[in-house]
Amino acid sequence: MAGQAPPPDIAEVCRRAKRASRPLAALTPSAKADTLLALARALREGAPAVDEANRRDVARAREAGVSAALVDRLTLGPARLEALAKSVEAIAAQPDPVGQVTALERRPNGLLAGQMRVPLGVVAMIYEARPNVTIEAAALAFKAGNACILRGGSDAAASNEALGRVLAGALAARGVSPDAAWVLPPLDREATKVLLAQSGLVDLVIPRGGEGLIRFVTEHARVPVIQHFKGVCHLYADEGCDHAMALRLLENGKAQRPGTCNATECLLVHRAEAGALLPRAGERLAALGVEVRGCPRTLALVPSARPAADDDWGREYLDLVLAVRVVDSFDEALEHVARYGSGHTEALCTASYERAQRWTREVDASCVVVNASTRFNDGGELGLGAEVGISTSKLHAYGPMGAEHLTTRKWVLYGEGQIRG
Amino acid sequence: MAGQAPPPDIAEVCRRAKRASRPLAALTPSAKADTLLALARALREGAPAVDEANRRDVARAREAGVSAALVDRLTLGPARLEALAKSVEAIAAQPDPVGQVTALERRPNGLLAGQMRVPLGVVAMIYEARPNVTIEAAALAFKAGNACILRGGSDAAASNEALGRVLAGALAARGVSPDAAWVLPPLDREATKVLLAQSGLVDLVIPRGGEGLIRFVTEHARVPVIQHFKGVCHLYADEGCDHAMALRLLENGKAQRPGTCNATECLLVHRAEAGALLPRAGERLAALGVEVRGCPRTLALVPSARPAADDDWGREYLDLVLAVRVVDSFDEALEHVARYGSGHTEALCTASYERAQRWTREVDASCVVVNASTRFNDGGELGLGAEVGISTSKLHAYGPMGAEHLTTRKWVLYGEGQIRG
Repeated sequence: MAGQAPPPDIAEVCRRAKRASRPLAALTPSAKADTLLALARALREGAPAVDEANRRDVARAREAGVSAALVDRLTLGPARLEALAKSVEAIAAQPDPVGQVTALERRPNGLLAGQMRVPLGVVAMIYEARPNVTIEAAALAFKAGNACILRGGSDAAASNEALGRVLAGALAARGVSPDAAWVLPPLDREATKVLLAQSGLVDLVIPRGGEGLIRFVTEHARVPVIQHFKGVCHLYADEGCDHAMALRLLENGKAQRPGTCNATECLLVHRAEAGALLPRAGERLAALGVEVRGCPRTLALVPSARPAADDDWGREYLDLVLAVRVVDSFDEALEHVARYGSGHTEALCTASYERAQRWTREVDASCVVVNASTRFNDGGELGLGAEVGISTSKLHAYGPMGAEHLTTRKWVLYGEGQIRG
Repeated sequence: MAGQAPPPDIAEVCRRAKRASRPLAALTPSAKADTLLALARALREGAPAVDEANRRDVARAREAGVSAALVDRLTLGPARLEALAKSVEAIAAQPDPVGQVTALERRPNGLLAGQMRVPLGVVAMIYEARPNVTIEAAALAFKAGNACILRGGSDAAASNEALGRVLAGALAARGVSPDAAWVLPPLDREATKVLLAQSGLVDLVIPRGGEGLIRFVTEHARVPVIQHFKGVCHLYADEGCDHAMALRLLENGKAQRPGTCNATECLLVHRAEAGALLPRAGERLAALGVEVRGCPRTLALVPSARPAADDDWGREYLDLVLAVRVVDSFDEALEHVARYGSGHTEALCTASYERAQRWTREVDASCVVVNASTRFNDGGELGLGAEVGISTSKLHAYGPMGAEHLTTRKWVLYGEGQIRG
């Protein structure tokens, strides 16, 4: 398993993962936590080998002339590997979601009925350059009692193979079947289609990466998919808002880590605030190296701005670029967000109680924010511990997905011979 | 709308439903309840016209020589129409799931973070003969703040058209857009594929009907699907169980309403109990007109039984037929259920604490039952009020789906200017 000499037969991988998932579901919380701690230790011990493999991937990517952003996503290095080990320890320390029954309600006939949280079974993840996903996804899937099948990108092939070896070693040391976690070599699209067709064996597939990958998965999947789509996140500076706060949220949302999906990509400003707010915003953004692409009214107030093209609205830059538009009303801001937002994160800066309530009620996004940065839509910040990503699908999970979201709930009924009348 | 002169353009139907879904999401609980009460009244007033249309469908089905079970599913009649009106009133009286925030947790930085229950948007239902689904699905979708698109079967075309008129009248009387609920005429498979391809417009599709329909939908859907698959429900009479209880659960599970998906289709008996239990079971089943198809050991104990063929294991009879098998151990019963069960409902009759705990923990099904009838896997019995069906998908909902399962939860964050460090 784990990348070395994988069986070429994807359907057989899925069958073996499904078989392995039954004993996983019955593992006790402490057995799972111990295995995760063993994984964290194995990561530390294996760090030099992983780092060396990762350097080869990075060198190959550099030779191929890929973007600096991609090289950054690909790079592990000792500090990130240590952070990865720490995050596995954090997952080990989290409460175990499996087996919990939140309440047993007594039905009129005396039957006790409740819902028990149980693993999904087999979770497949299809992702691109970031090799840390290999460990985080495997750890979260295992915590939730699932077998997992991980298909990373070809850019990270050597890193993933090395991480797969670490993972396999930790599982073997704790007596867990190697079929419980598959780190596949890069698959071509035909082999990926076979993986996506295994309904009855694969219970969930999570695609994480560029729009092309996610569309490919959605189009070919015969198994349930939870999409982790792009984040086109807006900040709306409302009429009467606190300008100092609006500027703070804007700087943090746009520039603190511009390559993340919860970064702010577009600023909307009420026309009553534009005259005072936008020139200051333009200066602050320029100082941070942010390029502004504005509507005509913005251009009149921010001399350094370039005119926004039609496709700047709804665009995920993942870079130091910001679209800016002046709107005439709160409703126009809502309309803009409904049309161009991606259902990810939408923030309002306001002093109005009524509009804060309308924003939280009416905006359709996985995370709707009042007077805080869009950057808070994150599993760690929202108390989930680690996350496999941020779902922009509405079913099952909408927003950050932690171990709990890799489970489902079945009904359990305890009776004393009740029958239906 | 509503079946009369539907636009032939399915994509346009979906666009209009999506547009209509935004104001629906903002309706107050009392506005929705009032509209549902208006629908119940309209159903009573329109009952004669619906009944007349339904008689035409039934007559057509009889002429075509369809099965008695299908005629039964198709038939409405005054009593069932009154029951339908009552169920709409019950849905009106249920708590409104939309807008509820169960808790706002205070994060370390003071940010208040919670999850608000919100509608999915547009829910499509693809179903077959039962015309009551038209009203129940529309009422549940509306209660949850969703627009709905309902595609019934050709057998029920006249009934659905008449029910669609009633629905449209009730919505119009309360000022709700007619685009909020579409009762489509029967669509051919090509038109259905267009409906299934509307990702971005249709948020969920629920297929309900035979295996062929569900496979067709799963194969062609580019939008999220929650399958309502068949129920191959087992009852396992464990070593040392109370025989009187086992017989009571068996009779109720098999014969109280054999055409339902939560009826018991297969009895498993521990070999230690078979000698005493099976002859009595055979007599009781014969008296109820139930045909027994047994394994060789069953045949020796139940003289009236026929030999079970290989395909009797895992078969959904929906009829007065029962498969019976003697097993050597609890683990063999678990294996049988894992192999042949459909993830619907699995019941154990036992006196053993340990095996009751193992059954609830280890059996993978939407409802796992100890010492009660399989017939209890039902939205009404489990306290959900009405249901759109029983999901055998694991994502989002596993088991009966009520109004709450036609919603999702988005994060809402209330801050005072917090930014990420």
